[in-house]
Amino acid sequence: MYAGIDIGGTFIKAVITNSEGKMFANGKTRTPETSDGINDAVIGLLKGLTERLDSRVSALRAIGIGAAGAIDGKKGVIITSPNIQAWHNYPLARIIEKKTGVRVFLENDATAAIIGEWWIGHGKKFRNWVMLTLGTGIGGGAIIDNRVYKGQSGSSVEVGHLTIDYRGKKCRCGNTGCLEQYASATALVDLTKSMLRGKNNSSLMARIKEEPLTARMIYEETVKGDALARKALEEISFYLGIGIAGLVNIFNPEAVVIGGGLSKAHRFIFPIVKKVVEERALPGLKDNVKYLATKNEDKTPAMGAAKVGIDSSEL
Amino acid sequence: MYAGIDIGGTFIKAVITNSEGKMFANGKTRTPETSDGINDAVIGLLKGLTERLDSRVSALRAIGIGAAGAIDGKKGVIITSPNIQAWHNYPLARIIEKKTGVRVFLENDATAAIIGEWWIGHGKKFRNWVMLTLGTGIGGGAIIDNRVYKGQSGSSVEVGHLTIDYRGKKCRCGNTGCLEQYASATALVDLTKSMLRGKNNSSLMARIKEEPLTARMIYEETVKGDALARKALEEISFYLGIGIAGLVNIFNPEAVVIGGGLSKAHRFIFPIVKKVVEERALPGLKDNVKYLATKNEDKTPAMGAAKVGIDSSEL
Repeated sequence: MYAGIDIGGTFIKAVITNSEGKMFANGKTRTPETSDGINDAVIGLLKGLTERLDSRVSALRAIGIGAAGAIDGKKGVIITSPNIQAWHNYPLARIIEKKTGVRVFLENDATAAIIGEWWIGHGKKFRNWVMLTLGTGIGGGAIIDNRVYKGQSGSSVEVGHLTIDYRGKKCRCGNTGCLEQYASATALVDLTKSMLRGKNNSSLMARIKEEPLTARMIYEETVKGDALARKALEEISFYLGIGIAGLVNIFNPEAVVIGGGLSKAHRFIFPIVKKVVEERALPGLKDNVKYLATKNEDKTPAMGAAKVGIDSSEL
Repeated sequence: MYAGIDIGGTFIKAVITNSEGKMFANGKTRTPETSDGINDAVIGLLKGLTERLDSRVSALRAIGIGAAGAIDGKKGVIITSPNIQAWHNYPLARIIEKKTGVRVFLENDATAAIIGEWWIGHGKKFRNWVMLTLGTGIGGGAIIDNRVYKGQSGSSVEVGHLTIDYRGKKCRCGNTGCLEQYASATALVDLTKSMLRGKNNSSLMARIKEEPLTARMIYEETVKGDALARKALEEISFYLGIGIAGLVNIFNPEAVVIGGGLSKAHRFIFPIVKKVVEERALPGLKDNVKYLATKNEDKTPAMGAAKVGIDSSEL
């Protein structure tokens, strides 16, 4: 038995699986705001899931964790993370190892997501394909010749930081005009807020009186037919299309898969993305690309993290 | 004995080599404006070089040709080419085969350039690296795990068509804001022309009275200390840096190699590119990148084309 944990900006998701990808249990909880809170939440999830299987945490053979940010996988250290300020040279793997007595392996969350998709999702059908995870930021990954591309230092395909407007919006990474400033869930919320200013004909107006605006809320109101919500979702899909056209021109992939919270909105996103790629990418490279959304956002990235644990513990 | 031909917008370059990369002869000629003219020039080069070696064209085991544009390598057809209008679904390989009696294999010129660099240039030192060819347009290629990345249909890493400004300059590919509209030799000439308007303090003024402005001329005057020429070269290097920062964020490569005519100006280009990548690419991905110019622009791309012929004729 192995555990996989996907620590996102909003939820922590966990699975228990065997080495063949048979999932025995899964669960999730809201992401606490402090690093100690996150550690406790991870342990709590692992205890709950193993108990449900009449087992215990120490019976796990390895734990894999996917987390947003710059990761030193060899050392098990989070160098920096956009979501959690306290994660600065933070030895997350060692800390969870001490609390559980189980070996822990750490990976970038977008890399864990594509490993999950490659292992138990759409990836079985293709040899060369790319994935974008649409969440607080935009992560990415590429499978080349049926293997995860890692680059020289273990990080790659940071598509969220492709420049789409070199004089554009300032990004927290230091660059200007990064794709994730235009097409992430965060960008969708910011854009919608600015569109709502001075308006009162959107169903979102009533909802934001009760709780803060979220990307999920914008998606839900789009489904219900709210025109402003849909317009916002379609505008960020346009920018996403520009980034994906870039990936298509670079990788000439068999498929583009989207994951992350926003991927639920794929039926509104993909028609715009396909139109932009058709208009902007090169003939020959754009012609046979399949566009797919991850099948199970609640499980696949955590399963990918588990796969990192499985493969790393066998080395 | 094998031949390699590199058909560029300005010159056609040819080499004769053995299968181990030992070059016996090389030569070049100006690129004619018609497809028939190009065919005759290719045959002329092959005759001249083989005669110099006391041999003949029909003694060649294979001919590899690199040409700009969308190439169907399997059929030996140029689908479209930016440089030669008449090359539209043009069966160049079959035509040269008929004229020579030797098997001919066709490849995109940027792909041929990176194959040459991988075979006899800087590529021996790295496993994961990228190349940009700076000429009339900007081509590109990636070596991943010591193999040329080809994508699903044989074309990839079209870095010249990465969008750096989604509302920017119109590109002949249909997209707006493509890197090659800002950082190719063509872009350098256009930028310099606009900077020269109304000026009379540049040494380029005297030269353009005698012949049309070229990128080579701008490079030569930069070397001689002309401030305007240098300013233009540095401005396109800034845009090139934005594109290379994107490649660094995607590939996390060990090295970035530049080829093509403009690569001669590497000592003016790279300081700006390095500064832009340092400012704009992500920590961890940009940290250990080497920047190199191709060693022999007159031979390496043609040698890469020869290697395509060598490998394809062995299949």
